Amino acid sequence: MRVIQLNETVTASNERDAEALRLRMREAGILLVNVMSSPGSGKTTLLSRIIRDLPEVKIGVMEADIESDVDAKRIEALGAASIQVHTSGMCHMDAGMTAAAWEALDAKDLDLIFLENVGNLICPAEYDTGAAMNIMLLSVPEGDDKPLKYPLMFQKSDALVITKTDALPFFNFDLEACAERVRKLNPEIRIFPVSAKTGEGMEPLEQWLKACLYE
Amino acid sequence: MRVIQLNETVTASNERDAEALRLRMREAGILLVNVMSSPGSGKTTLLSRIIRDLPEVKIGVMEADIESDVDAKRIEALGAASIQVHTSGMCHMDAGMTAAAWEALDAKDLDLIFLENVGNLICPAEYDTGAAMNIMLLSVPEGDDKPLKYPLMFQKSDALVITKTDALPFFNFDLEACAERVRKLNPEIRIFPVSAKTGEGMEPLEQWLKACLYE
Repeated sequence: MRVIQLNETVTASNERDAEALRLRMREAGILLVNVMSSPGSGKTTLLSRIIRDLPEVKIGVMEADIESDVDAKRIEALGAASIQVHTSGMCHMDAGMTAAAWEALDAKDLDLIFLENVGNLICPAEYDTGAAMNIMLLSVPEGDDKPLKYPLMFQKSDALVITKTDALPFFNFDLEACAERVRKLNPEIRIFPVSAKTGEGMEPLEQWLKACLYE
Repeated sequence: MRVIQLNETVTASNERDAEALRLRMREAGILLVNVMSSPGSGKTTLLSRIIRDLPEVKIGVMEADIESDVDAKRIEALGAASIQVHTSGMCHMDAGMTAAAWEALDAKDLDLIFLENVGNLICPAEYDTGAAMNIMLLSVPEGDDKPLKYPLMFQKSDALVITKTDALPFFNFDLEACAERVRKLNPEIRIFPVSAKTGEGMEPLEQWLKACLYE
């Protein structure tokens, strides 16, 4: 398991770095998807399920955490290209760190790379990583009031994946009320309720991801 | 419901501000407890339970969120002194903001004030709020690997409250393994597994809090 330690990028403009990375990845034909959520919303479990369900798509994963390599090990065990990034205590990834992580991933012929951002519902939404798409997860146990409290991430995301829907019977989570709150912040957002454990709802999400891949 | 908007404090030293606030609150005989966790770990539900269970303790709550006032409204409905702080997008509270929130709370004769910090497992651990004690919550659905990934908050906390233990049958969470990981980071930490929903485990936590109050 490869682990790289990265520091915040010293740069004149993160936006310019992000645009440059986006262009390079577009030219390389690799779709970069930035995956954000609170800690413990099920990012690695979701990505593991997608990797297993879509063997026809060549997928790599860049795992960003403050410490540990447990997530990258889970991805590596599935046979997918993976790298563990340690953020030197930082609460988010920036575009320079993402470019360095891509270089360190060093995998050829990928169709799709997921950047599993640091578990945090606030700071990652403030930094463009250079990804072509942003998706966020909200897990059922976290509650349906999160769009009210953390609006920026819901505004910045192309898709919201509501995870752990198998836990709906045990928690007070109103899917309709949540979707309504989210669409008030972001009318264009796609919403996919899923259980990565049972597989329920995974197909629409996976078909959408496949449709977003470059030719 | 009173709502105040605060910006990051411009100060020479947050540590000095924190020490000054700690001293003032000690002199006022009010125990200030900083409560930290991921979004959706159940901070407001836990505090609501403590307020109901301990009518003999005069409790106030300062709710810090980026937006919304749903948490402060829940506390106010219980008859406790409360104020909603909006952090102007900030991911944590500092000591100056905490002092301003205390002033705005404007409640006499309190024994205990909870500062419900912004939902975030990273940044709040980096800023001394001036609280006499730090407690953190980790909810069962988040997973028992969190001490490996977010060590600083576990190191900075006097107590860890493991919440939503009523959900243990539905999630893969190993209480023993979690406690072992936490004690490696912080041998002195107290650990309280609780369900604020069923009440299980609340009494040891509440007795400990009462023992910490000033005469």
